[in-house]
Amino acid sequence: MKILRTTNELREFVLENACEIGFVPTMGALHDGHLSLIKQSVGENDITLVSTFVNPTQFLPGEDLDKYPKQEASDISICKNAGVDVMFIPAVSEIYSEFEPLILAPKNLAEILEGKTRPGHFDGVLRVLTKLFHLVCPKRVYMGKKDAQQLVIVQNMVKTMFFNTQIVPCEIMRDSDGLALSSRNSYLNEAQKKEALKLSRSLFKADELVRNGELNANEIKSKMSEILSPLEVDYIAIVDRNFAEISEIKLKNTIILVAAKVGKTRLIDNLWI
Amino acid sequence: MKILRTTNELREFVLENACEIGFVPTMGALHDGHLSLIKQSVGENDITLVSTFVNPTQFLPGEDLDKYPKQEASDISICKNAGVDVMFIPAVSEIYSEFEPLILAPKNLAEILEGKTRPGHFDGVLRVLTKLFHLVCPKRVYMGKKDAQQLVIVQNMVKTMFFNTQIVPCEIMRDSDGLALSSRNSYLNEAQKKEALKLSRSLFKADELVRNGELNANEIKSKMSEILSPLEVDYIAIVDRNFAEISEIKLKNTIILVAAKVGKTRLIDNLWI
Repeated sequence: MKILRTTNELREFVLENACEIGFVPTMGALHDGHLSLIKQSVGENDITLVSTFVNPTQFLPGEDLDKYPKQEASDISICKNAGVDVMFIPAVSEIYSEFEPLILAPKNLAEILEGKTRPGHFDGVLRVLTKLFHLVCPKRVYMGKKDAQQLVIVQNMVKTMFFNTQIVPCEIMRDSDGLALSSRNSYLNEAQKKEALKLSRSLFKADELVRNGELNANEIKSKMSEILSPLEVDYIAIVDRNFAEISEIKLKNTIILVAAKVGKTRLIDNLWI
Repeated sequence: MKILRTTNELREFVLENACEIGFVPTMGALHDGHLSLIKQSVGENDITLVSTFVNPTQFLPGEDLDKYPKQEASDISICKNAGVDVMFIPAVSEIYSEFEPLILAPKNLAEILEGKTRPGHFDGVLRVLTKLFHLVCPKRVYMGKKDAQQLVIVQNMVKTMFFNTQIVPCEIMRDSDGLALSSRNSYLNEAQKKEALKLSRSLFKADELVRNGELNANEIKSKMSEILSPLEVDYIAIVDRNFAEISEIKLKNTIILVAAKVGKTRLIDNLWI
């Protein structure tokens, strides 16, 4: 497995490999959630490239940029074992310049839910992905449904800005107890990990309600709210696949989302139905 | 010569031709200035693609979007005669969607000179070029030095956002009397065309002064101002190649720019020394 650290090395590699790359962009601290994306890419592409880059522009002042988990040695060994061909591990100075254009995510998608609590977050995501997509020239990009709003915003960008790449949405990976995998789970102690199960349980309850014929969004949210109590809930939302809020579940076109704090750690989870 | 009008047709053509395209993006109303870019591309590339698209997002409210000259038949015949392989002539609805990301040009480059009078103009330029670059996947892009600030802002975007393309700056074309060619010259009557010569004359005077050893920017601007009188001058500026204002000419790293109104028509011209 090659490890590239500069944009020049990366460009050279990509030119030799003619834009036939499966790409998994990550912020490192790889867990089984990332691994499932990586394995899917390895299975579907001749070449798989994984980037691990803690992108500063998608963190707000006061967020966990400085303490975001970094574990390069473990990331490298996970990628090597999974059959990854190339890792791109750049320094911030390789990616960002003093004066450069900004990208603003579309307001209707970016100023709600995650964007409400984290204004500018998705702008930073689109900015770094634009750069990485230009560098990697990926045929397919693997992204998790766990960051559902991010996925939809990136799909919108790829479509409206005519990127010549295919975004492949990948299923959420969960611990055996249901907790959605996240690099931020490493902030949780044992007691908090149990509390954190309330997020997935509230979603499983919603799923059960829908299976039993309950389609009213407010009814579902209210039952979810009972399960989430006493966590500090940021939002419970029921939206269609374009992230427009809906009052009635539309089967195969609905995402139910929850964001809540467990201790100081903000967690998100969701369910596509 | 092929004429493509949809993004789907264009994408198909580009995929068949593997990113080896010389690209001349224009707003149509082609004149000998464009023709020199086109000829250079035809000479340097196996395939030359010219787009003619009056991009609404780079016009401000109240500007000349609606009356901007459109002459498709003549554009097509100019391209055909010049050996162009493909023209892309899309409708606005092919290029823009209701919800999509915005691009903001870097403030230090975009809020001065042209950007001061035309806030948002360069954002619109970068937005459409990002889309066109993604669609066309050009090996080389030909742009005129006449729009000097645009050229520098696009070069900045290509570099900092890692577009895999080369921007080729092309010399300003002038009428035999010195007037820089521009689609907007068609707004001028005969008397105004004579008045408009003051722009190029002021620049030729600056050139003469520099050749004679005058390097003080204020001295040069003051002499230019005398020549431009009584036109309504928007700016006379002397900057380095990064568009930072300079007080002393640096040879091979200076651009002298002028913008002024002749009647209701705003004209720009410049000189690279």
